[in-house]
Amino acid sequence: MSDNKLQVIPLGGLGEFGMHMMALRYGDDIIVIDAGMMFPEDELLGVDIVTPDLTFLKENRERVRALFLTHGHEDHIGAVAFFLAEFDVPVYATAFTLSLVERRIEEYDLDRDVRLRPVKPKQFIEAGTFKVEFVHVTHSIVSAVALAVTTPVGVVVHTGDFKVDPTPTDNELFDLHTLADYGKRGVLLLLSDSTNADRPGYSESERAVRPRFEDIFNRSEQKLIISCFSSSIHRLQQIIDLSQEFGRKVAIVGRSMISVTEIAHNHGLLEIPDGLLIRPQDVAEAKPSRVTVVISGTQGEPMSALSRVAVDNHKNISVKSGDTVVLSSRIIPGNEKTIFRMIDHLAKRGADVMYGSMNPPLHVSGHGSSEELRLVLNLVRPKYFVPIHGEYRQLSKHARLAEHLRTVGLEETFVLETGDVLELDTNSARKAGRVTVGRVCIDSGAAGEVVGDMVIRDRRVLSEDGIVLPILAINRHTGKIESAPELVSRGFALESDAAFMRAARESVMKTLEGSNEEEKTDWGVMKEKIRADLKRFINREAERRPLIFPVILEI
Amino acid sequence: MSDNKLQVIPLGGLGEFGMHMMALRYGDDIIVIDAGMMFPEDELLGVDIVTPDLTFLKENRERVRALFLTHGHEDHIGAVAFFLAEFDVPVYATAFTLSLVERRIEEYDLDRDVRLRPVKPKQFIEAGTFKVEFVHVTHSIVSAVALAVTTPVGVVVHTGDFKVDPTPTDNELFDLHTLADYGKRGVLLLLSDSTNADRPGYSESERAVRPRFEDIFNRSEQKLIISCFSSSIHRLQQIIDLSQEFGRKVAIVGRSMISVTEIAHNHGLLEIPDGLLIRPQDVAEAKPSRVTVVISGTQGEPMSALSRVAVDNHKNISVKSGDTVVLSSRIIPGNEKTIFRMIDHLAKRGADVMYGSMNPPLHVSGHGSSEELRLVLNLVRPKYFVPIHGEYRQLSKHARLAEHLRTVGLEETFVLETGDVLELDTNSARKAGRVTVGRVCIDSGAAGEVVGDMVIRDRRVLSEDGIVLPILAINRHTGKIESAPELVSRGFALESDAAFMRAARESVMKTLEGSNEEEKTDWGVMKEKIRADLKRFINREAERRPLIFPVILEI
Repeated sequence: MSDNKLQVIPLGGLGEFGMHMMALRYGDDIIVIDAGMMFPEDELLGVDIVTPDLTFLKENRERVRALFLTHGHEDHIGAVAFFLAEFDVPVYATAFTLSLVERRIEEYDLDRDVRLRPVKPKQFIEAGTFKVEFVHVTHSIVSAVALAVTTPVGVVVHTGDFKVDPTPTDNELFDLHTLADYGKRGVLLLLSDSTNADRPGYSESERAVRPRFEDIFNRSEQKLIISCFSSSIHRLQQIIDLSQEFGRKVAIVGRSMISVTEIAHNHGLLEIPDGLLIRPQDVAEAKPSRVTVVISGTQGEPMSALSRVAVDNHKNISVKSGDTVVLSSRIIPGNEKTIFRMIDHLAKRGADVMYGSMNPPLHVSGHGSSEELRLVLNLVRPKYFVPIHGEYRQLSKHARLAEHLRTVGLEETFVLETGDVLELDTNSARKAGRVTVGRVCIDSGAAGEVVGDMVIRDRRVLSEDGIVLPILAINRHTGKIESAPELVSRGFALESDAAFMRAARESVMKTLEGSNEEEKTDWGVMKEKIRADLKRFINREAERRPLIFPVILEI
Repeated sequence: MSDNKLQVIPLGGLGEFGMHMMALRYGDDIIVIDAGMMFPEDELLGVDIVTPDLTFLKENRERVRALFLTHGHEDHIGAVAFFLAEFDVPVYATAFTLSLVERRIEEYDLDRDVRLRPVKPKQFIEAGTFKVEFVHVTHSIVSAVALAVTTPVGVVVHTGDFKVDPTPTDNELFDLHTLADYGKRGVLLLLSDSTNADRPGYSESERAVRPRFEDIFNRSEQKLIISCFSSSIHRLQQIIDLSQEFGRKVAIVGRSMISVTEIAHNHGLLEIPDGLLIRPQDVAEAKPSRVTVVISGTQGEPMSALSRVAVDNHKNISVKSGDTVVLSSRIIPGNEKTIFRMIDHLAKRGADVMYGSMNPPLHVSGHGSSEELRLVLNLVRPKYFVPIHGEYRQLSKHARLAEHLRTVGLEETFVLETGDVLELDTNSARKAGRVTVGRVCIDSGAAGEVVGDMVIRDRRVLSEDGIVLPILAINRHTGKIESAPELVSRGFALESDAAFMRAARESVMKTLEGSNEEEKTDWGVMKEKIRADLKRFINREAERRPLIFPVILEI
């Protein structure tokens, strides 16, 4: 590259779902925007989380100046600990976002100090040749920002994730004025969130869920159990306010739900009236009509609090006939079957389960739909445009939404995928090759491990510790195991050790015996339990970490 | 059982998705309503289709009098061939439904005559002690009926699948009058479709898609490719009408699409103006702006016509920049990822892909929402009610929708699951044990096989021919295979035959080599191709049929 060019290098999140990370490079300076993770697809059942490959940044190690974070969702901050294990640079974000980052870093026990630098909207940060302004935006998480990056060749606006909510519950409006100012002065490049580019019209305001919730609070005569994303502070505030109004105490259940609400409360972003909270262990004794349970697990994650409640396997919370369960969340594609199974279990316990699309809604999206995306495009009026945050279909829809700007200065839209390099100077832009990108699969093992010690797998070779496939047949109707579990393995050092394999098979049997009939009819739960238990067994007994893929034949 | 009791015995479709089948028994007479199939879930990748276990009927072989079919969807008729292989009884259905059944029977080459008896709405059929009236209903397929069954203890109304479409495109209205008559005279039991019981309000009329299609026809400047369910004759009629109005010829692509349109046309249920159709092989030569392609494959089925088009692997149809692709269908839960991958491929070819929910809609449901279900409940005013056709969550929602009928004669609602027996006499009803039910997995092998020869697997033992798991790692970004495929097997007779296993591995390699880079980035397509090719190889070379589960590690 020539030295007077700006390079825009997506390292994750373009043409794929989640794992957002973007590098901007000019000469000897690189700044990184976001360091997110994604949850593995079914095909990666052997691993826990997936992060972007940092090879490109490692090859340019001495150039990396800083990490900027737009907001605190896992797909934007989930890889920060791994990034910091490699790069000792300052991290700039809002105070709330940094608190969420700190919590993750503590979990991974990164054994050196890190430089977390809180920034407020309208503040400027210099990093190498770049000057970065934080611009407040509205999103489903509080304290979200866009970044306006002044570079030697022009201004780059990176929206982060956003919607244009005219009535956010905290009354912190989207800072359209600052974006408009940049637009007026001239923006070289806009990088804008494409998540909902395939939805027409406007996304509804967060306040739109209030009428539906009021109706539910009005009708509920027994326990009210509400699940939402733990980071949805706006949503939690509304649930807390309504519980207060309707005379219900609130129990917060689930590890992430408890820790995020604590953080938000400490930052003054979540108001909880004194005496409103009760402990999860006190729910069973409380009058059902006087309790709201706020619980994590909207996606039916097999080990989540709500999934355990659904199969009557939670230590504090149980669902009784007449209770109401509300899923105030979207269904992330791929999770449908798991979520529907969970709902079926809840319905069998006699709960009235509220889910899906209704009017007024139980959930609103945190991402702007077509007309909001157009509003931002029109305000920023960039010379070049790159849709970010989306799979190819969303990126290409977003590109189409910008077509009308051709008449007011838009020169070109580039639909990039992760790894594509865009090179710009003051009056031209072109695709300029690719850098190394990929997915790093992280098998986190026991919690509390030091990042450096974590097994970060390179899946280019089948794991060095081999692969173990527990195979079993479960009768869907009865939950009965119809054959003894088989263990098939390949490349696993102990596969010819008959005694060990027998013991491993017994460990699978033990998992099965320790599960109730209802769990056994749910292969999602069973796969996850078998995987976790067998992994622990093999780690402990043999100090190996093979990939473990349970295969369940439903009959 | 005592002989003056009516038994209602769901053999499939209650508490599960698809595979509808219901038996009514009184004394020595049994009639069966519908004989459907379901497509296997991922967990059953080794098989092609799944049908209800017929054990109960076989145990009562001499009592089975007739099979009645409500309409021609696969989840209601897909198991008819297997049923007829066992039971030589007459099949009663509308002429169109029977034509769809005939097509399936021909495929399976059932080697004896079958008694298919066309029935018109308002006609009565006697079968043993039962008298069955056909009642016309509106649904997403033409010629759908409900059944009003007069039994010695009272009338049972079985709705089949329905919506209450006030303006069906063929102007054949839902016969509400007949239902109302039965309601007035007194109905013992209502069995009603619960598919959309979890949706509020009314489903839109089939005509509601017309404005959206008009808009698309107006804007499309190049080829217009529309995919819908092949059985959606109403939808096809609208597409054909609009193509005629807008001066586009119509090419019908995909095996099921061609055969169903032919059948509908022969029955006078689909009007196709002379000279409108062109052959798929002539599309490439035609002016793109003058062509509509109607194609099967809405669910992204890896081997479907549209999936092949998406990866540029179809012999007649290709997508060019500027073409419009419309998915006029719903996403069946579990298919999201496959469908979205297909859309991404189409978007990469430069097509504008229209999908998802919009207003006006691209697709409307064929099943009634809450208020339509209430309308039927109110008309029929049954003494007892059993919600049918749905997973537990839908059945329990439907049960709640009937609560208000308590004041006008509803005695009790029973939420049954497949296998539960409900026993009724003139003034009482109770659950009375269970019968043997289950899922039979059918590995159809080569097409044209005789039903009796087909391998019908009992999954209670892992297949007698064992299990083979081809394992490979594919780089998602490049489509490159990152390691030679491994073959892991268990209980497969030839696993110690090194030469055979090597040849089998080579067959997998050949499948990989014969796939283009785009297909290789799509694990859904690859799994299905590997499975099909390896199955064929092992069948041919070793005359074995192990279960084959490809495991793909995406990296």
